[in-house]
This record gives sequence, C-alpha cells and structure tokens, in this order.
Amino acid sequence: MTSGSDSEIVFRTQLQPRDEERVERIVTSTKKFNDGEVAIAVELVVERRSKGDASGYHFVFGDSGSETLGYACFGPIPATQSSYDLYWIAVDAGLQRRGLGRRLIAEVEASIARLGGTRIYVDTSSREDYAPTRAFYRGMGYIVEAELESFYAPGDGKVVFCKVLGN
Amino acid sequence: MTSGSDSEIVFRTQLQPRDEERVERIVTSTKKFNDGEVAIAVELVVERRSKGDASGYHFVFGDSGSETLGYACFGPIPATQSSYDLYWIAVDAGLQRRGLGRRLIAEVEASIARLGGTRIYVDTSSREDYAPTRAFYRGMGYIVEAELESFYAPGDGKVVFCKVLGN
Repeated sequence: MTSGSDSEIVFRTQLQPRDEERVERIVTSTKKFNDGEVAIAVELVVERRSKGDASGYHFVFGDSGSETLGYACFGPIPATQSSYDLYWIAVDAGLQRRGLGRRLIAEVEASIARLGGTRIYVDTSSREDYAPTRAFYRGMGYIVEAELESFYAPGDGKVVFCKVLGN
Repeated sequence: MTSGSDSEIVFRTQLQPRDEERVERIVTSTKKFNDGEVAIAVELVVERRSKGDASGYHFVFGDSGSETLGYACFGPIPATQSSYDLYWIAVDAGLQRRGLGRRLIAEVEASIARLGGTRIYVDTSSREDYAPTRAFYRGMGYIVEAELESFYAPGDGKVVFCKVLGN
C-alpha cells in the first residue's frame, strides 16, 4: 500500500476517547477559525458524547490507522421534517487537496439519506478567502439558495448552500 | 384606568420563578406550535435560568399586574460580530391584535441596540397560514432577505426577515 493513498482511509461514525483532541487539532490546523469557533467545534463532540443522538450532532471521522485526518459534523434541523445542517467539515491542513473532503461529504450525504433526510444545508462566508470553500461545495452539487449580506460582519455575508438528496 | 389598555403593560427582562409555566401557556395558546416546539420554547427559559447571559438567550416579558401576556426571546448569533436572532415572539391568544406584539418587538430592538447589535434576523414559514405573521414583520420594518424553498417540509419554506438597526 502507498502511504497517503485515499484507499487507506476508514470512515467511522462512533466516537473514540480522544476525538475532542483530534477535532481541536484538525480545526486549529486549518487556521480558518478563531479560538471561540474551535471551542464550539470541540463542544459539539462533548455534547455528542454525553447525549448521543439526542444531542442533535452526528459525526463522520476519516481515519488512517490510529490517526484522524478529517471529520464532519451534521444533524437534523429542529422543527423541520427532513432538513439537515452540515455544521462542520475540516481536513488536517497538511492533507488538503487530496480528496478527503469530497469523501467526507459523500459519507455525510449517505448517512443523512439513511436517516431519512432529504435536504442538506451548509453555511459559509461570502468573503474572498472563502472562494475555494464555495467552489468545493459547488463541485459537490450544492447550489446557492440564499445570501445574507453582512451577516457575520460588515462586508462578510453568509452564503447558504443546499443540496436536495435523491435528485 | 381601563382594563386591557396597553398603557398597563410593564416590560421586564429578568426572569421570575413561574416563567416556564407562563411561556408554556402563552405558546400553547397560539395553537401554532406542536408539543416539541412548545418544549423547545420552555427549554430556552430553563437555559436562561441556569446559565444567564452565557445561555445566549435573552427575554422580554410583557406583564399586566401578576399576569404575563406575551414574551419574546432573542440572542446573539454565534460567530457573528453583531447579528441577533429573534427566536420567539408570542402573545396570549386572547390578547392578540391589540398591539402587544408590536410593543414587544420594539422592546427587543431597543435591547439589542443596547447590547451593540446591528442586525436582527427572524425566520418564519412561507405557508399561507403564516401570511399575518409575515405582514406583521413587514409592518415593523423587516425585509425579506432570503427564502429557502421546502426548508421546513415539502411546500413549507423558510422566509428570513432582517432589520438593520439604526437605519
């Protein structure tokens, strides 16, 4: 087997003991999130661990051996029939552009379909430095459903992508 | 003083011991929310009581004597600089169309301005039976910023209203 080959990645949805540290390390490595945002990412793992499905947070981790290289967090949107939010998706900064993000999204979509979900929403920023992120979602079949001007901060809008499953 | 006059309403932001019951009664009386949604409304009071500002939930209650006639719940949107969500606003079903909703919204806007907020978002349904709700927000100066088709359920979209404060 070739080191770093995609074929070595194993996906799992069950938490392991050190996932809080792993999530903190992965999210921090991207340099895209401030301390408060990193804390929120870790908190969602803590919630999942203490409350299970009732937390509203589901995870997919991509592991290579004992290392976790990326993960995604998603869940049903309260008060909706079958809409889901993709809350987080992050890949270790040293491993980006190798297709792990695409495979994580595909795993998330399969999980949501199994759970009976029909629509997936994901929010991102309208800022120029998020252009690669927006291109990534477009490439995965997500379409821009809404843009909220200056939502995050003046000049930093929220772009809402949506993918309808089974289409 | 005339019984039922608006001038008798006293607004407060501090919780009182029986607010969980009051919120449950008010939200239930509107007949617009299912049991799960009523439970969420009550849970936000519980969160506020146990965590204070750290809960992310702020309240305005409109009281007449020892009775609470309506309330609103709002809070800062995580990861935004100064955007707020109006999560709930409900008036006792027997007291609607007397202007309490408008006065509650005005109190919420004043509170958010004091907290440094600049934008207020509120979500509602695109369904025909929510036309009065949408007209209410329009009348208060909120504009439709986005519409997410079939967000809540097939044929039941989410309409996102926004008001920029200080404009």
